[in-house]
Amino acid sequence: MGRPRTPLLDRERITTTALEIVDAQGEFSVPQIARRLGVQTGSVYHHVDGRDGIVELLRERIAQRIDITALDIRPWDAALMTWARSYRAAFAAHPRAIPMLMTSPVRAPRVLEQYERAVTLLLEAGFPLPDVMPVIVALENLVLGSALDLAAPETMWEIADDAATPRLAEALDAIGDNRADRAFELALEGFLRHARHMLDTQAQA
Amino acid sequence: MGRPRTPLLDRERITTTALEIVDAQGEFSVPQIARRLGVQTGSVYHHVDGRDGIVELLRERIAQRIDITALDIRPWDAALMTWARSYRAAFAAHPRAIPMLMTSPVRAPRVLEQYERAVTLLLEAGFPLPDVMPVIVALENLVLGSALDLAAPETMWEIADDAATPRLAEALDAIGDNRADRAFELALEGFLRHARHMLDTQAQA
Repeated sequence: MGRPRTPLLDRERITTTALEIVDAQGEFSVPQIARRLGVQTGSVYHHVDGRDGIVELLRERIAQRIDITALDIRPWDAALMTWARSYRAAFAAHPRAIPMLMTSPVRAPRVLEQYERAVTLLLEAGFPLPDVMPVIVALENLVLGSALDLAAPETMWEIADDAATPRLAEALDAIGDNRADRAFELALEGFLRHARHMLDTQAQA
Repeated sequence: MGRPRTPLLDRERITTTALEIVDAQGEFSVPQIARRLGVQTGSVYHHVDGRDGIVELLRERIAQRIDITALDIRPWDAALMTWARSYRAAFAAHPRAIPMLMTSPVRAPRVLEQYERAVTLLLEAGFPLPDVMPVIVALENLVLGSALDLAAPETMWEIADDAATPRLAEALDAIGDNRADRAFELALEGFLRHARHMLDTQAQA
């Protein structure tokens, strides 16, 4: 295996290019990246650990924008709230990458490190070990579902005939601004309320 | 505009083909559909209301699998729970369609009708009009985030070095079966708990 003199720079460029393609198409291929960079496909493979390696570079790139120091906040629920908001913002910038990243295994060390900190937070808060990952995954599902929703058009429901769906028309008129934010905050508040309840029940048992 | 003799059959075939392409690629183009069906691109446009029309046919096709009668159940929270589970199952069969459908406006009459029924349910339950759409969208976000998670690999976190993330390794060992289902049910329970709380607060005001 050759060792390129500037591997970091090259991986950066490969990641940036892959992200541009994913933002546009929801997918990428290694030959596409090579074409855009004006190099042979084999040269790309020289710098990364296969296609899966590029997926992990994308994951690290997007996750870099998540405020990991949020997980140092106490109490734990304030930490999760701040982390979740930052997590949503990071992925909302790249909604088309969400399905790809949600359906391939997490291997990126820096991202695993972020999970380690979230797990530690919840264990210290008193969550029983078997509940920790379900709690984290539930939070991620609502965060990522809400991140996709942020990419939705402002007018998400187009009613051709008010008479066919009169109550929906009324409810849409009453939405006001920041529909996506309000829905996210509502789901987040519900999640935290439930997590607190789980912990209280646990403490009483 | 010509009127094909078997428009329904043709729209069905176009929808089926578009869905196959989206399932594989997360996207589709009208020429791709035409190629697969062995017809001219113009012939496809003959049957549908442009590319957006095909997106709406996809939405109707997937939403057909949602049990809309769930919205007739009372009390309202049992209705939402049953609807949410069925909604998640319908989209879990087509995870790659989720970003496309979440980011283009809903126009399909049968899908708007489903929203009309959900809005009616919540209004009858006593939710104030401005809260109705945020409640529905929050539920959809967690449903669709969880549907994407159902498409994730069983081993979602691959730890190369247990020593680097020891607590994550423990938490993963303790997960047990049905990770995705447990996370979804946890988020759903939290959502319903919060929605009940919103309604109680409203009743006391």
